[in-house]
Formats: sequence, C-alpha cells, structure tokens
Amino acid sequence: MFDKKLQAKIIIDALPYFKQFNNQVIVIKYGGSILEVEDVNDALFQDIVLLSYLGVKIVLIHGGGPEISRWQKILNIETKFIEGLRVTDSKTMEITEMILSGKVNKNIVAKIQGYGGRAVGICGKDGGTIVAKKKSEQYGFVGEIVDINPSLLTALVNSNYVPVMSPIAYDEDGSSLNINADFVAGKIAISLKAKRLLYLTDVPGILLNKDDPSSVISKIKTTQIDSLIEEGILSKGMIPKTLSAKEAIEAGVEAVHIIDGREPHSLLLEVLTPEGVGTMIVSENYDK
Amino acid sequence: MFDKKLQAKIIIDALPYFKQFNNQVIVIKYGGSILEVEDVNDALFQDIVLLSYLGVKIVLIHGGGPEISRWQKILNIETKFIEGLRVTDSKTMEITEMILSGKVNKNIVAKIQGYGGRAVGICGKDGGTIVAKKKSEQYGFVGEIVDINPSLLTALVNSNYVPVMSPIAYDEDGSSLNINADFVAGKIAISLKAKRLLYLTDVPGILLNKDDPSSVISKIKTTQIDSLIEEGILSKGMIPKTLSAKEAIEAGVEAVHIIDGREPHSLLLEVLTPEGVGTMIVSENYDK
Amino acid sequence: MFDKKLQAKIIIDALPYFKQFNNQVIVIKYGGSILEVEDVNDALFQDIVLLSYLGVKIVLIHGGGPEISRWQKILNIETKFIEGLRVTDSKTMEITEMILSGKVNKNIVAKIQGYGGRAVGICGKDGGTIVAKKKSEQYGFVGEIVDINPSLLTALVNSNYVPVMSPIAYDEDGSSLNINADFVAGKIAISLKAKRLLYLTDVPGILLNKDDPSSVISKIKTTQIDSLIEEGILSKGMIPKTLSAKEAIEAGVEAVHIIDGREPHSLLLEVLTPEGVGTMIVSENYDK
Amino acid sequence: MFDKKLQAKIIIDALPYFKQFNNQVIVIKYGGSILEVEDVNDALFQDIVLLSYLGVKIVLIHGGGPEISRWQKILNIETKFIEGLRVTDSKTMEITEMILSGKVNKNIVAKIQGYGGRAVGICGKDGGTIVAKKKSEQYGFVGEIVDINPSLLTALVNSNYVPVMSPIAYDEDGSSLNINADFVAGKIAISLKAKRLLYLTDVPGILLNKDDPSSVISKIKTTQIDSLIEEGILSKGMIPKTLSAKEAIEAGVEAVHIIDGREPHSLLLEVLTPEGVGTMIVSENYDK
Amino acid sequence: MFDKKLQAKIIIDALPYFKQFNNQVIVIKYGGSILEVEDVNDALFQDIVLLSYLGVKIVLIHGGGPEISRWQKILNIETKFIEGLRVTDSKTMEITEMILSGKVNKNIVAKIQGYGGRAVGICGKDGGTIVAKKKSEQYGFVGEIVDINPSLLTALVNSNYVPVMSPIAYDEDGSSLNINADFVAGKIAISLKAKRLLYLTDVPGILLNKDDPSSVISKIKTTQIDSLIEEGILSKGMIPKTLSAKEAIEAGVEAVHIIDGREPHSLLLEVLTPEGVGTMIVSENYDK
Amino acid sequence: MFDKKLQAKIIIDALPYFKQFNNQVIVIKYGGSILEVEDVNDALFQDIVLLSYLGVKIVLIHGGGPEISRWQKILNIETKFIEGLRVTDSKTMEITEMILSGKVNKNIVAKIQGYGGRAVGICGKDGGTIVAKKKSEQYGFVGEIVDINPSLLTALVNSNYVPVMSPIAYDEDGSSLNINADFVAGKIAISLKAKRLLYLTDVPGILLNKDDPSSVISKIKTTQIDSLIEEGILSKGMIPKTLSAKEAIEAGVEAVHIIDGREPHSLLLEVLTPEGVGTMIVSENYDK
Repeated sequence: MFDKKLQAKIIIDALPYFKQFNNQVIVIKYGGSILEVEDVNDALFQDIVLLSYLGVKIVLIHGGGPEISRWQKILNIETKFIEGLRVTDSKTMEITEMILSGKVNKNIVAKIQGYGGRAVGICGKDGGTIVAKKKSEQYGFVGEIVDINPSLLTALVNSNYVPVMSPIAYDEDGSSLNINADFVAGKIAISLKAKRLLYLTDVPGILLNKDDPSSVISKIKTTQIDSLIEEGILSKGMIPKTLSAKEAIEAGVEAVHIIDGREPHSLLLEVLTPEGVGTMIVSENYDK
Repeated sequence: MFDKKLQAKIIIDALPYFKQFNNQVIVIKYGGSILEVEDVNDALFQDIVLLSYLGVKIVLIHGGGPEISRWQKILNIETKFIEGLRVTDSKTMEITEMILSGKVNKNIVAKIQGYGGRAVGICGKDGGTIVAKKKSEQYGFVGEIVDINPSLLTALVNSNYVPVMSPIAYDEDGSSLNINADFVAGKIAISLKAKRLLYLTDVPGILLNKDDPSSVISKIKTTQIDSLIEEGILSKGMIPKTLSAKEAIEAGVEAVHIIDGREPHSLLLEVLTPEGVGTMIVSENYDK
Repeated sequence: MFDKKLQAKIIIDALPYFKQFNNQVIVIKYGGSILEVEDVNDALFQDIVLLSYLGVKIVLIHGGGPEISRWQKILNIETKFIEGLRVTDSKTMEITEMILSGKVNKNIVAKIQGYGGRAVGICGKDGGTIVAKKKSEQYGFVGEIVDINPSLLTALVNSNYVPVMSPIAYDEDGSSLNINADFVAGKIAISLKAKRLLYLTDVPGILLNKDDPSSVISKIKTTQIDSLIEEGILSKGMIPKTLSAKEAIEAGVEAVHIIDGREPHSLLLEVLTPEGVGTMIVSENYDK
Repeated sequence: MFDKKLQAKIIIDALPYFKQFNNQVIVIKYGGSILEVEDVNDALFQDIVLLSYLGVKIVLIHGGGPEISRWQKILNIETKFIEGLRVTDSKTMEITEMILSGKVNKNIVAKIQGYGGRAVGICGKDGGTIVAKKKSEQYGFVGEIVDINPSLLTALVNSNYVPVMSPIAYDEDGSSLNINADFVAGKIAISLKAKRLLYLTDVPGILLNKDDPSSVISKIKTTQIDSLIEEGILSKGMIPKTLSAKEAIEAGVEAVHIIDGREPHSLLLEVLTPEGVGTMIVSENYDK
Repeated sequence: MFDKKLQAKIIIDALPYFKQFNNQVIVIKYGGSILEVEDVNDALFQDIVLLSYLGVKIVLIHGGGPEISRWQKILNIETKFIEGLRVTDSKTMEITEMILSGKVNKNIVAKIQGYGGRAVGICGKDGGTIVAKKKSEQYGFVGEIVDINPSLLTALVNSNYVPVMSPIAYDEDGSSLNINADFVAGKIAISLKAKRLLYLTDVPGILLNKDDPSSVISKIKTTQIDSLIEEGILSKGMIPKTLSAKEAIEAGVEAVHIIDGREPHSLLLEVLTPEGVGTMIVSENYDK
Repeated sequence: MFDKKLQAKIIIDALPYFKQFNNQVIVIKYGGSILEVEDVNDALFQDIVLLSYLGVKIVLIHGGGPEISRWQKILNIETKFIEGLRVTDSKTMEITEMILSGKVNKNIVAKIQGYGGRAVGICGKDGGTIVAKKKSEQYGFVGEIVDINPSLLTALVNSNYVPVMSPIAYDEDGSSLNINADFVAGKIAISLKAKRLLYLTDVPGILLNKDDPSSVISKIKTTQIDSLIEEGILSKGMIPKTLSAKEAIEAGVEAVHIIDGREPHSLLLEVLTPEGVGTMIVSENYDK
C-alpha cells in the first residue's frame, strides 16, 4: 500500500484541474498506430472512465491503420499510399469499414464499459454526424469533411455517455468513405466547442530533430505552424494534426496537445497534473 | 399522378392507426434471410422513416446470416450448425461482429438517414445494453441473454433517433458473443414496454402446411404455441420467434406479428391498415 | 379494399411533406361561405385531425356570414353592407357573437373532437388574444386589429390542442366587435411565425377571368398584388385575403394558399401532395 | 382615504388565508339567477382576478337561465319545466348554446380580462371536457354527466388562465346537451381535486325557514343532507347543490359553501376572512 | 369585527399592486437603528411573509449597529467612528460578525419562519455572494464591495425562500470585513434586477429641514442628489442611501424608497397602496 | 514532483470510489474538539471541495464546544455540565448561538469558499430545518429534535452548494435551543437518505481500551452497541454517536464511520481508498 499522506497529497493536487475541466468537452484522437488491436491500452480506458466520473465530457475518435493493413494482407489486397493517404478501392473500403466500425470501435466500447464507464460506439454515418464527399478520384473512397452535425454527439454526452467514433462517413450517393481521423477530431472539437483537443500518438510530441526523442518542443504557437511545415520540422502525420490544431484554436478551442499515447496514463497526467507532457499548441495570445 | 380523391381517402383511412401508435414503441426484427446486404429493401426504410415522423418509436434489430456465410467462404472457414445455431469459433466470431456491427448495421443506418430519418447503429455492447453469457461450450461464442439495460435505447428514442441494433454482446470476460436476434428482439420489446413486436421474415407467416404459402394462419393465441411446436407446425426459425412472442405478450406487449418482409411496405401496411398480413400472435384474452 | 401497393405508394409519397411540416404552425381561414352550418364539411375536420397527429400545429379561424344573415332574417334585422363590410348595429353584434362564438365555433370543436382530435373553441376576447378598436362609426360594431397577444394560442398548440377561433374581439370599452376573419388569420399567422397560411374559399383560387373557373392563376408574387387589384382581377373578398397574404409573407410566412374549400380534402392534398391546388402567393425571391 | 392602520390590519388579517389557498383549486358556480346579463356583478370579477394573483386557481362554471327565458320569449318558444329542469327541444337547445357559450360566457371573459385577469371561455365540448348523454327523452336535450376529462382545465390553470365554462356538452351523436351547472361544478371540483367548491346563489344560504332570510344554517354535515331533503328544508335548486356538495366532500373536497352572490365581494370575504357568510357543508369528521 | 364592505374594498384596492409586483424582486434594507434586537418589529415580518405569498421575491439586508455598541460596552471596547464609519479592530470585527450573522440575522429568520414564511439567513461570505476588500487601513476591518455574485440569492428566491443577509464579507486573505449595509442593498438590488429598493429607517423620509419631521420631501429625482448633498440637506446616513439609490436607478431599478420603519406596516402600505409614505427617488424621466 | 506513474496509479485506484459515491449524500459531523477555531483544519476543507467536484453531495454539521467555553470565561459565565450536556442559561444560549452560527459556521464557509468550493452556512432555524423542543428544564436551553424538514438542505445540495450547519434550532415559543450535533447529524443523514454518515472526532475510533489508542475496533455491528454501552466500552461522547449510528443504519444509511479528524485528509482517505481508518458501524447483515 501507498503511504497515506502521499495518496492524499496527490489526489488533492489534482483539485484545480477537476475544477477546470468540470462539465467541459475534451476530444481525443487515438491513433491506430498505438492501438494494438488485440491489446488495447487499458490505462487509457481507465483514464477515460475516471475523467467521465469527474464530469468531463469525453469524445473519442479512433483510427485503425495497422489492423486494416493486416486484413489487406489476409485478403491479398495490395496496400498503396499516395501522399500519406491509403488508396482505397471498394474492396478495401468494405473491409476498412468492417474493421473500424465493427471491430476496433466495439472493442474500445467493451473496454470502457468493462472499467465501469458508459460508452456508445458510432461512426460518422450515425445520426448523419459527418457530411462528406470524395476527396479526389485518385484516392478512391477517401473522403473529406463537408459539414459536421453535432446533434447526436451532444445528445450522447448530455446523457453521460462517452461517444467512441470511427472516421467513416457516407457521401451523397450513400457510398462509404474513409476520412483522416486527425481532421475528424479537429472538426468535431470545433463543433462541440471543446475546451481541449488531444492527439495520442506514438511519438513523444513534436520533435525538433525527428531522430532525437528528447528534442520535444513543449509549446508551439499557431502562428509558427506554417513555417514549421515549410522547414520540414512538421511532416507526414504531424501535418493534419497541426493544421487541425490551428483551425481548432482559431475557432475557440483553448489548446491542442500532441502526447505520447504509449505512455500509460498520459491522458490522465496531461489533464490532471501541472506538468504537461508532449507538445502543447496554443494561440499567439495565450498566457498574455 | 394518382386520382386525388383516392389519395385523400387512403391517407385518411390511416388516421385511426396514426392515433393508436402515436408515441408507442414498435420493435422490429429484420431477418438476415431477407436482408440482401448489397440491395437492402428500400421500402422498409422508407416505412421506418415515415413511421418515425408519425411519432412511432421504432427500434430495429437485425441479423445477417447469409453475409456471414459468404465471408466464411471467402476466409475458408467451415460453416457448421448444431440445432439451428451457427457454431461460432473465435475466427468466425471476429468476422461475425465485423459484418453485423460494421457492415450490415451501418448500411441500414445510411439507408434510413438517406431517406431523411435519424438512425444510430449500435450493438448490445453499447451502453451495456445486453448482458450475456455463453450458451454452452459446444456452440462456441454463441450467447444467451442474462439481462437487458434499456437506458441507451430509451435515451435514443426519446431524442427521436431510430436505434438500429446488431445482436452482438460481450460476456463477463469481455469476449464477443453472437446472440439469436429473435430472442434479442423479444427481450428488448419487453424492456421497452413496446406496444408491438414485428418479425419480418422470408415466409408469408406461420403456415399450417409448410409447403403451401397460402396456408397462413392469421391469428394464434399464446396458449396454442406449445402444442403447435409439438405438432411440428412450428419448427426451426419459427420456434425462437414464437417463444419470444409468448414471453413478450405475457409481459405486456399487445401483439406480435410475423410478416413477409419480402413484400414491399409490408411494415407500413401492417401498422397503418386494417387488414393485417401474415400471422398475429395474441394473448388468450385478446378481443374479449 | 384498395390495392395494397397503391396504398403504400400513396402514403410513402407524402413522406417529404410530413417532414416539412413537422412541428410547424399552419393557420387556416375557413370561410363562412363554404361552411354550411348544419352540414359542416367533415373531410376538412378529418384532415385537421390527421395533420395534428402528424405533428402539425393547426390554428383554425372561421367566419359565419350566411348563418348571421339567416338569423338577421329570423329577427327582422335589415342586412346592410358598406364596401363589403356588414354594417353591425348593437342588435346585430349581439346575435353575431352568439352565432360565431356560441354556435359555429362550438360545432366545429365538436366535429374535430368527434374525429378524435383535441380542439378548443375560443374567440379574440379569450386571453386578450385580439386587441381591437372600432373601424369607423359608419360600420357600427366592426373592428380592426390593434395588436395580437399570441400567449393563449401558443399555450394551446403546445399542449397539442387545435385552437378554433371566431373573429370577435372587444374594444377598450368592453364592447364586442366583429372583425374580418381574413385579416385575423393573417395577423395570427404572423404572430405565431406560421409556416403557411391557407384561405379555404368557395372558388377554385384567384381567377384571371372571374367567370371562368378554369382560369386559376397558380402562382402570384407579392409584388404583383397591387397591380392585380388595380386591374380589378382581385376584387371583393379577395382583397383582404391578398393584402393579408402580402403582409404575412413580408413578415416571414413562407407561402399563402387560396384554395377551394368545397373540394373534399383540399387541405390535405395541398399540404401532403406535390401538386398544389388553387393559387399560391409567395415572395419575389421564392424559388431563387 | 382609509386610515392606514386599518388598511394594513385588514390586509394582514388575510395572511393565513393567502397561505391556505395558495396554489389550490377553487371551483365556483355562478348562478344564472344572479347574473343579470347586461349588468354582471363587477365585484365578483375583481375578486376572481385578485384571487388569481394570490396564486389561487379559480375555475368558474356559469348558468344563464333568465337570459334563455328572455330569448325564448323573443323567438316565441314556450318555456316548460319538468321537475325543475327546462324541457329543451332542438330550437331551445340551439338558442341555449348560443346564449350560454356565445354570449354569457364571453361577457364574463371580457369582464375578467378587463380587470386585468387572464380568462378563457370554454364549454364542456372543448377538449372533450364533459362526456355526457341524454338524461331522458322527456326532457329533450338535457344531459347528464358520464365522465369528466380534466386535461384542458388543468392545462389552462397551469398556464395561469381562469377557465370560464358553460355547462354545454355533446353526446355520442354529436348533439348538444344542456346540463345542470350545479352538477357540472361538483364533478369538475372532484376531477381537479379542488380544495373548495362555492355556489354563488340569490339567497343568503340554506334557510331553516325559507321565508326568513335571517334563518341561515351556518354549517351542515354531509350526513344531514338526506334528512334535510326529506324534511323539505332543502328543496328545488338547493337539491342539486347539496347532493353535489355531498359527493364532492366524500371525494375529498374540503368544504362546500353556499353563499349570497348578490352581496358584493361575497367571494373574497368567504375566502379571505375568518367569518364565513352563508352555509358551509362539511364532512362528519370536520373539526375533529 | 370590521365592516365587511370596508374589508373587501381595502383588499380590492390593492389589486393593481398585486399585479405590478408579482414575481418581481424587492430588496429591503432594514436598519440597525430601528431594529431593537430584543423586540424586533413584528409588523415588518408579517408584511414580508404576506408579500412573499403574493409572489413578491423579497431579499432583506439588515444592519445591527446598536447591538454592536452594546456588546462593545460589555467587552470594554472603545466605540470610535471616522466619517460615520465604525472603526473596526479585529476584536470588534469578531464580535460584529457574531452579532450580525449569529444573532440579529437568525432572530429575523426565526421571526419570519414564525409567521409562516420561509427564510434563510446568510451573510456575504455564503456562496461567495459579496467579493470585498478593505476600504482603507484607517477604518480597520471595514470593507467595500468589489463584486456581487448573485447565484445563491437567485437560487434561494427561486426556491421561494426569503434570503436574510448580514453585510459581512471576506477579503482575499479570508479576513472578515464589515460593509455598510446601505451600499450592500444597492448593489444587491442591481445584481438581481430588482424592481424596487426600500430603505426602512428611523426618520419619516428625507427632510427639507432636519428638525421638522413634517418637512418630508415626497419625491426626488436622481439628478438632484448631488446638489442636495452639497446643500447639506442630505447628510450622514442619508448619503450612502441616496448615492446607492442613484446608482441603482441608473442601473435599471425603477424606484428607491426611504420610509419610516418605525411605523407599523410601512412596508406593506408602501408596496400595496397608492399613497406612498416617505421619500421616493426616481430617474429624471420618471412619469414622462 | 512526484513520480508520474505513482501519481497516475494513486488517482486510478480511487476510481471505484468515485463511482460508488457519485451523486450520493455524505453527512459529516465535525466535532468542536478538533475544530481549533483560529486554525481550522485546512486539509478537511480541501477534501470537502474535492469530493464536491467529484459529484458527492456533502452536508457538514459542526459543533464548537471549546470556543463556547472560552467565551463563557471571557464573560464570567460558569461552565456547568449535567450528564455530559452543557447546562445552558439564557446568557449562555445567546453567546452559544452567536459563536456557533455567527463565527464558527461562517469561518468554515469562508474556508471552503477559499479552496474553490461553494458553501452556505445555515443553522437549524433556517428554512425551519430543525423542529425542536426543550429537553428538560434542568438543562435550560438544550433542545431535542422533534422533526427534520430537509427541503432547504435538498435545495442547496441540488444547486451544488455544501450546506454547513450549526446545531441551533428554535422551539414553539421562538426561543433558541442548543442541540447535540451528533444527534443532528444522525437525523439529517436519515432525512436525506445519505449513503454514509461520518463522525470526525479527536480519537482514532472506538477503543477497546480507552487508554490504548492502538486498540481501535475496526468494525462494529449495530446489534453490539447496547452491550458495548453496558460494558462501558462506549461512554461519554461515543454514546450519542453510536446511538445515532444505530438509528441511521436501521433507517437505511449504509455505514457510519467514526474517524480521527486530527489526521490530515482522513475524510478523503476514508471515502476514496480501500483501507478505512477508525471504526465502521454497519448492520448485522452487512457483507452477507
């Protein structure tokens, strides 16, 4: 057992954060890269349940890339990327939706329920939450967001459920589309007037030197993002995250965090302790 | 165009039914056998949207057997039944859940949304709606219902959404289980105090002579069910339907209907016109 | 019996209209000329009950001219009109109120209740709904509207009642006044932010040639009304209707319809089918 | 001006009564005999407005006999009574409804509105409030109450309106029926769980000696009523009042008062001062 | 007994005032000078209970100077004033808080409860209602108001309680501060959007000649206050009252009254009768 | 800074308790013996604020004996106890109320507010919460509870305030009475259907040997209490606590805890960690 004084001290130290996030929305993007489908990170789900008992309204957006690649192999479908986007033919789209909405999504729901939470697994089709269209024919069934209808998400968080959402939507013709989950998270955060948006990734944050994990940049202003992209410090998967972050912050989200989802309880520590981990993105005027 | 007088007459004739079902719950089981996954019955979804605009609270439970068999073939999994139940090994369970919760379920949601309705696709795991356990080791991951928690369904229908539910739940260990959708529909109808429970099947109703589609029995009392099973008039898939019907009626559901889902708008005609189609199951005291 | 397919088709075709009018207010003016007091049009009341079950909030304003004339004869009161307005002495006013608020009004209520609806008969005095003053001494107890207080109407439609209203109000001195029901309907539609205002009359609509019932003008823009009056195409009873329509549309009512109340179910067909009957009045920018 | 001390004293003395009747229903029957149609008693309407500002939920039931007789004379209809009930042929019924629902009722509404109150004039047809049937063919269109549906009255009092109700209902065939207002008041009081039922009449109360106005019996127990009828002390119009009173008290109404409506402010004084006027009818156990 | 007609007349005459103050907030400052602690004015508490039954939302702010002086004597603490403010050392502050919040406050609560009202005794600390800081070191623990948080007061009046408030608050360091109750009343009236603010004092109102009680000025415009102070007509305790009145009226309070609390029922008479007593302060444009 | 893993682990371990007490009432008696008036235990108030952010509805009842004794000395009032009850003459009662309701109570409120909580200080008089009568003339103004009216407490906890209550009430004559706070806490717990009742005292719990602080009895069944009193193991201040505990548990409170208030964060540790401290009193059937 722990020392009792320490126990009390640690819980009491979280008090200001309890207050700050009470009744606020936090949108979390949980990347496929850290989601080992068969061994999902239990610490994260405990954190989510705990935060929801503290009155925080959590919305979880997940990906599932590695599991899709695994099934493409099983089914002998060639995996092909153009500019970081998985080219998605109709066969791949079929299996992508089955994996994301039928397997990964429901696994997460079962885990959260198992820890005593109340979760509901949906995708962008449910309640017409995401209105989308094809990005460009060359990518196949890859979509981009036209509009967000937050009614269902609002109804769920107000009934004290944690919505768990896969980034699948349909277009005007009713065809399923696969959408980049980083962009989905950003748009959802805006539509729900979230206080925070968190990207849980498989790196310690934004790195000044991408080969040096200790070179985490702890704070970035939205005004710096464009030049960081130009300089190549932000590249690949960091680009949709930071562009979404910029858009979200300009629309009123207080701060966006990019943190290491591989660290157990990184969510809890980010939300309930003073020392942030990873990179925090804020507006030019933050702290002034 | 139609004759205007006829048009008016037909709509007006539905008035007593509008009144009767206003604000009532109707649970619909939509069988996999009539659900051609790639070409789902549009008429049904129009009916559901229309009824929800009339203030009827629809809950749709679906199966998906044929699509599961198709994927078992793709993946070289042997299809095996014991006493009408699909023996479900872990590989089959994985693919079953992906198909039912990730494909069939979301297809239905997209269709209902496409006709202007508001649908949310869930499974028995979401919100802990179905508490289940393994039926018996010999069937593998086949479950039976221990309890129903209707909170999520209630929250959704009260927010004017049509819940679309796949019959997948998890057990205490978090393993996914496949449950007979007929039983799920019966238990859900009871837990929601539904006015009606409808089974949409691929036969015209309960047949006195199973080879003669014109031998539909139009009304059965719950007290007759046991002897009809003994006589073999009720067999195979009709057994879980009629046993669920009996239990539901004894728990207060007004009537259970077994109708032909292959007929376009059979749902609408059953609910909004005087001449029922198929077989109606009622209590001993009905009509007295 | 109808052909089932036709039945289903007709009901399904009404679906877009169910959606469009759900939870919207429609104000209906029901003219005395079509209201044969002893044989009120049952089809209309069925339509109203049906629409109220569909979630449409109906407010019905009625006249009763012929019945007033009949009683004036019984009581040997001379019937006299100036510019289309019934000159109303105190004896006529007494009998007018008794007929409109005590007979015609309550007959309509009883009919709607009889078809399973929920109706409440009121006049402009109830809840101080209409604030009025004498139009001019030459007309006697003929009033014009000073203000509308919609609280009682709102309370009734929100409790799912159909308010049925006679166009009688009182002035500051407490004297009863008779008000043109066309104007009342227009002002009520504005105060309730109604989606539509319908005038049920004894002609097929606005006629280009008043002697040719087939010369119905199907659509008129509000900007055309003044010149149509000048040209004499709009005259007599059409003038208060079209002027009220213009004012209502400018205040936000989407469209005003002048239809033939003598046709059974003309209300239902107007609201629930694509082919409008009669004349529709819209703003200059409608359809753009 | 009054002496200020006296003013304060009188208002303060009413405090216990303000508390007692706060948020309670009081049903008042206002007899046609005291209602001089052209000169209705203003004091009563002021009292009603005042009580409604004090949070008392007033429901007013009125008659109108003398005005009916007056119109029968105008129209040369013979006035005929059997056992105190006006024999009502269809012509009489037509004029009765017009007078009660269209004239007397709306006059009262206008008066209450004029004193700053919020009143709504309805009859037993509105909202299906009174379900009635013909009493017996010999009386013609005279009804008796089959059932009361208090939904509309409840909706109105909860929206802070004073319902003013004429005792007209319809039967299954839709024919208008005239019902004894004393009975209506009793049944309405029961259905609304009223705290008090007040009969405002043209006598000072129940008289021991009907020729001696000073012989008012100040309190009667419900158990005494049958013998008082037998002895002839209760006769004519007092019989429906006292029988209704008995039924109301047995159903939970606290007390029924028969008071002199000709005395200005008799309502206010009865409700807000300790010394009752007229006769109070209570249960056997009252005061114990 | 009173004459009944007079009784009725007096109550009826109050009707317009019942209407005017229904559901409105009235803030009352009840001065220590008229509050004989052992013999508090029962008439006032009756008035408050009566007004709260009439639907007026009363908030009572009290002082308690004489009782503080009495205890200073008991405890041998020197009483010292600078510019009309009691210099408050820590010993005096301790006893002041005990007297105001623990004795005077709870006595008032008990009295109001005793007359059948519902009262809750609080101070400016409760619910963080008053945010304060020290006025200046020379006065010791005398505070001035930095901000008002009306949430607790609003919660209490909406639950039909009369908040009774002592003018004690705390500063950032948690030290108790004594605040001028006249200023507290003004700020509270503003924060609650009160209709009226009443100062109950020990003089008949603002006197033109302070030695002549008959020289009450019955109405003052806010624009006159500065010059009245300059001329010395307003002095001492009238200064905080009139300055608060000015601020309150500019912020939307309709009128502020300074009346003689020593007159029994002066509150009731001021609120419910046409002839105001004492001095009424209004804006320049009042009556225009 | 702490080790992050430890931090996360400790917070996560509290999760089951967050769930268990979410939205539940906990009544805390905070004894005068541990309340050093000038140096109140800050850890306790932090605990209360934290628990209220976790959705626990805290009600705090306090005493204040030592401070009363201190003031009796200042004022030369003899301190006298009969059977553990302070004999309370009118002078002592006056000062007791001032200290408890005016000083101790408001100090606690200020502290809770200072830590970011929302507290409201009341006594048993406020809202008529405690109905009391004199216990016996020999004790003077010592009261016993006749009834509890929980409306005000319920209104406050439902508005997310922590009620802080001194054990002062009034009797029928309006005299203030001092009531044993242990009994008050028990009765309040029952009236609010509290989940837990906690006594924070100056001993480590119930001791088998009162001179040996290590002889704490960790669990007692209510059926053992009478014999423990007889044996003298329970004596003095433990008697009202254990008798109240027994009564509370029989009325449905789940468990009563007697813990050492001198230990920092003993409240938090008791509620949020598995290892209870002090003595837990439960029903005979607890754990079965």
